[in-house]
Amino acid sequence: MLRPALNLRIRVMLGEHIAIGPGKVALLEALRDTHSISAAARSLGMSYRRAWLLVDEMNSALRSPAVTSATGGQHGGGSELTEVGLEIIRLYRRVEEQALAANRDDIQQLLHLVRVSAA
Amino acid sequence: MLRPALNLRIRVMLGEHIAIGPGKVALLEALRDTHSISAAARSLGMSYRRAWLLVDEMNSALRSPAVTSATGGQHGGGSELTEVGLEIIRLYRRVEEQALAANRDDIQQLLHLVRVSAA
Repeated sequence: MLRPALNLRIRVMLGEHIAIGPGKVALLEALRDTHSISAAARSLGMSYRRAWLLVDEMNSALRSPAVTSATGGQHGGGSELTEVGLEIIRLYRRVEEQALAANRDDIQQLLHLVRVSAA
Repeated sequence: MLRPALNLRIRVMLGEHIAIGPGKVALLEALRDTHSISAAARSLGMSYRRAWLLVDEMNSALRSPAVTSATGGQHGGGSELTEVGLEIIRLYRRVEEQALAANRDDIQQLLHLVRVSAA
């Protein structure tokens, strides 16, 4: 039984580029938990190269970097979130939660207009 | 001068299908204003076929249709929004507005972490 579900996606755009978005925040959370780009990439089913590029893109878009990496060893040393990285996670998840909470009744009405599907 | 901007996107999903989303709501608004699928498609830079498919997909996903079309003539007679179609526009735009309003301070903080780009 398929029920309608709300999907809310927040992005901070800088022109055509996504500076902060759902994929980058999920990667920050994985980095916070694993302290390693390769482990974070693995936990998200993403290549090391893709994760590295996302981190690089995000750091370049920020006034101050979200992730610092120690150099040395294969795939570098460990990676750590900075205070900015932690702040991005906190703010982003709070914006999501509050957006849904602020709209509970309207969202329920919107969902109710959609069929429940047998498939 | 590029400044960071927030992009918020709301979708009602039914499994893998978008029942209600930004493209469909923009199409409903254009239909409300033009009373015609071909004029609405044109105003959105979309083919008639694509607009027709979006309307059909949306109507099928709803308990009760958002758009009714009179038959006859090339590309059919005119199209009109039902009460459900108008209600979708109202609810969807209100959810968007309230989501942004509920989060103004956090959103400002999030935007402030991103660089202003010279490009």
